[in-house]
Amino acid sequence: MDVISFARGVPAPECIPVEELADCARVVVERDGRTVLSYGSGSGYAPLREWIAERHGVEPARVLVTNGSLQGFVFFAQQLCTPGCRVLVELPTYDRPLKILRALGAEIVALPMDDQGLDPEALEQALASGPRPAFLYTIPTFQNPSGRTLSTERRRRLLELARASDLPVLEDDPYGLVRFEGEPQPSLLELDGGETVVYASSFSKTVAPGVRVGYFVLSPNLHEAVEAMAVSTYITPVLLGQATVYEFIERGNFEPNLQRVRELLCTRRDAMLDALERELGGSGATWTRPDGGYFVWLDMPGTDAGELLDRATAAGVTFVRGVDFGGGPATVRLAYSFVSPEEISEGVTRLAALLPAAAL
Amino acid sequence: MDVISFARGVPAPECIPVEELADCARVVVERDGRTVLSYGSGSGYAPLREWIAERHGVEPARVLVTNGSLQGFVFFAQQLCTPGCRVLVELPTYDRPLKILRALGAEIVALPMDDQGLDPEALEQALASGPRPAFLYTIPTFQNPSGRTLSTERRRRLLELARASDLPVLEDDPYGLVRFEGEPQPSLLELDGGETVVYASSFSKTVAPGVRVGYFVLSPNLHEAVEAMAVSTYITPVLLGQATVYEFIERGNFEPNLQRVRELLCTRRDAMLDALERELGGSGATWTRPDGGYFVWLDMPGTDAGELLDRATAAGVTFVRGVDFGGGPATVRLAYSFVSPEEISEGVTRLAALLPAAAL
Repeated sequence: MDVISFARGVPAPECIPVEELADCARVVVERDGRTVLSYGSGSGYAPLREWIAERHGVEPARVLVTNGSLQGFVFFAQQLCTPGCRVLVELPTYDRPLKILRALGAEIVALPMDDQGLDPEALEQALASGPRPAFLYTIPTFQNPSGRTLSTERRRRLLELARASDLPVLEDDPYGLVRFEGEPQPSLLELDGGETVVYASSFSKTVAPGVRVGYFVLSPNLHEAVEAMAVSTYITPVLLGQATVYEFIERGNFEPNLQRVRELLCTRRDAMLDALERELGGSGATWTRPDGGYFVWLDMPGTDAGELLDRATAAGVTFVRGVDFGGGPATVRLAYSFVSPEEISEGVTRLAALLPAAAL
Repeated sequence: MDVISFARGVPAPECIPVEELADCARVVVERDGRTVLSYGSGSGYAPLREWIAERHGVEPARVLVTNGSLQGFVFFAQQLCTPGCRVLVELPTYDRPLKILRALGAEIVALPMDDQGLDPEALEQALASGPRPAFLYTIPTFQNPSGRTLSTERRRRLLELARASDLPVLEDDPYGLVRFEGEPQPSLLELDGGETVVYASSFSKTVAPGVRVGYFVLSPNLHEAVEAMAVSTYITPVLLGQATVYEFIERGNFEPNLQRVRELLCTRRDAMLDALERELGGSGATWTRPDGGYFVWLDMPGTDAGELLDRATAAGVTFVRGVDFGGGPATVRLAYSFVSPEEISEGVTRLAALLPAAAL
């Protein structure tokens, strides 16, 4: 029996436009090889920086393109954190930043969310109840792990509070463009203009994760400091992947590919929600209904997700326990991004069969 | 007047096999795109790890391929350094590691060299005169910035001392294969087997710097710890560049290209030594005569290299001051790797014209 993975928050293989990227890689090396095969700017491939800057309405000098956006998070956190500093995050949140923050000795203050995203009142209380935090880390759109999206009203409120407290906000937005339905909310960066907000995104979900092309939009001062860290760490990021992404964009492939990815993932999201309703409807379990992104957050009161994971793995279906993201013991993250709609349906059936009848 | 740069320690554009790499990049994405365009092992592209392991006679599990070897140095230093720890380096040495070590709060202990490389007696004294250092950082072959090579006898002595003191040794060897003449010395890793020595190298000087493919050979324990840091920093290194390098190797291009690079650089080294002899012979200035690599180290007693650099830049020739590498005020690093033999000759003429007549 093949294992069905709801653990892997990665795109299904068919999301990746392999053949077109192969030709893009060849062309950029042939045409611009002496640039992309040499050392260059620590901020990355200039044409891609310009394209990103134009999309976000900022100066190219504020854009730093990194070997994946997590690398940028490391630089940003190293720049802003001192041991013992407070960092505000959502509860639950992406586990990798938590690990990086812990390694830096930060005190992590987790703020509760509901279906409208981060609770602004919790933010207000956290700001009132201790020294000024180094920053707030938020994934406002199709959050990892919850799939939730911060409402526009709360976005405005969050920025009011942040500005009043001189709190830097890091908006991590890798999933925002992977929207299946509904009107896009303005990003925090758009609402703010970049005084308070640092914006991070990547091409992992829109082009391919393996190109490892992430980026940050920073204030000019912060850009200078973070670029110096990048140069001190790897001299130049990998321009080959960045130039390949740029060529892909220049050929007009970005939007059509994104539309294709949205459709592939929307079918998977639908399969996941249908299967959950079919198998767990009325059981007392609750789950999020994301309008985009990769993840559904499932809460099964009375169930120990860690114990369930052991049995699920034996039964051929895996997921990530919610506690890894700071969530409660009865929560799990289900990624619908990687497996096929048929596997999603079968995987949820396998999972439901492991739950006590009382829960169903 | 075009500026002639002896500052850039980078390969001349004609050293980079652009067309062949373009085809390699295309083929690896077409053939193995779902691997190289997805997340993968934090230790890098498996076939390249195996090739590296075989060359060094170690298990592939000990090889970590990074986005350039400086990134590996950051991980290694973060793993071994605690604030205030002593780290031994050569005097002079590569400036970027110095900067990283300072940022980590290390106490840098610089050991003098002569034309046979690092002085083992200085190492012995340093080991006897304080707490055990976190590690020794050495570039034993065609050192940056001095161009010097550690003699085989001293290599053995260095390892005896390191083993007796349980001192980890980081052997940084990016230039070793770029040898123009003479018999290769055994690497410290070969002499040691990897109990005491961690080995680092890259494909920046043998294939292209812009692919950003460096690697470390670590003990199994250290590999596990450093791989965890890599995963926490960028999940997966950029497999596209690594797979492109591997394809280049598999096609049988590595050795012929290396031979071509050696010839291109040997001509430049000859042009540099000829010009120095012609312009500065008998002036009291001394310089190293490297058998490979990128650099000549020039000592001009009585000259202030910082002041000279200002005038040289105005006169259209640049270099890096020796003080940036921990060297004395009268020393400079001359890189012959980037400019043409004709430019090298002209650049040294320009430089000599700026020196006081008394020095010539």
